[in-house]
Amino acid sequence: MNFCSECGEKVNREIPQGDNRLRDVCNNCHLIHYENPKVVTGCIPEWENKILLCKRAIEPRYGLWTLPAGFMENGESNREGAVRETVEEANAKLTNMTLFSVFSIAHINQIYTMYRGELVGGKASAGIESLEVALVEEKEIPWEEIAFKVIEENLKLYYQDKATGTFTTHYGELLKLDNERFEVNYF
Amino acid sequence: MNFCSECGEKVNREIPQGDNRLRDVCNNCHLIHYENPKVVTGCIPEWENKILLCKRAIEPRYGLWTLPAGFMENGESNREGAVRETVEEANAKLTNMTLFSVFSIAHINQIYTMYRGELVGGKASAGIESLEVALVEEKEIPWEEIAFKVIEENLKLYYQDKATGTFTTHYGELLKLDNERFEVNYF
Repeated sequence: MNFCSECGEKVNREIPQGDNRLRDVCNNCHLIHYENPKVVTGCIPEWENKILLCKRAIEPRYGLWTLPAGFMENGESNREGAVRETVEEANAKLTNMTLFSVFSIAHINQIYTMYRGELVGGKASAGIESLEVALVEEKEIPWEEIAFKVIEENLKLYYQDKATGTFTTHYGELLKLDNERFEVNYF
Repeated sequence: MNFCSECGEKVNREIPQGDNRLRDVCNNCHLIHYENPKVVTGCIPEWENKILLCKRAIEPRYGLWTLPAGFMENGESNREGAVRETVEEANAKLTNMTLFSVFSIAHINQIYTMYRGELVGGKASAGIESLEVALVEEKEIPWEEIAFKVIEENLKLYYQDKATGTFTTHYGELLKLDNERFEVNYF
């Protein structure tokens, strides 16, 4: 941030009075510009013994498989955001949604919330951000072609819970160790 | 938002190509300024048969009781944010934290995440944003003096779960009906 979004003057990087962090501060209109983590919200759409995956038509991770998810918008609930993303990426309707996981990914300032939801009628097709969609059983999951670590973790947890017959809500933290490796801790 | 925070030119409120929502768009440097919900994170600190409440020393809701909670910062996990807020507001340390609830409050563009955590040594004192802190049993909860509806709901859920002996992670949505009344739905 270089300029104050309210008055247009240059901002200063400084610690405001009573604070202990560097912020972008406008010394003209005295606004403090806070920056906060963003929420990504999505779903594991379920149909009979299968779940819905989407093949990405956009970067990053073009051509790899993911679950419907995207940045939550103002004015919608967390659950409604997951519904919207599933419409956009897979032309698919969801019902009976329950919160399945919350992941914190501090190095990219993101919270990832994922729901389980029933895919209405088992119907889906590729939206504009997907090359194709597929309803797959566990043995068909392309584990080596999953777009994001957080999605891989959700899929692992999903099949662990499914095996026990009891789904719970998980909280995990992803730490990036290097370009290839992550540490995952559950609390 | 009036000015582009990158280049300082006036922004336009328009729907970018390929989008379906009004955004603040800079037609000089072509940056689209997205606005997204913010995350508030906090904790129900537990000690023996009591929990820790804080009496607010700041507006809004000066003088009313709440749980330690505040806006999540960049660079920290959701759980770490709850730990930090509990230090700031109650000079208290937490351990053994588990995610207790996620609330969506769409009309103010907030997600509220609350943990249960063990209050180390049962020790706490008022931080700068608190007038006082108190360890209270269920029968001592000042239900008529709780600062926020989302906190009241968390306390209700907490004692419901405690009564059954099984704590789960809850997801709820708060809808504001008017200045006095909320609708709460659980999924």
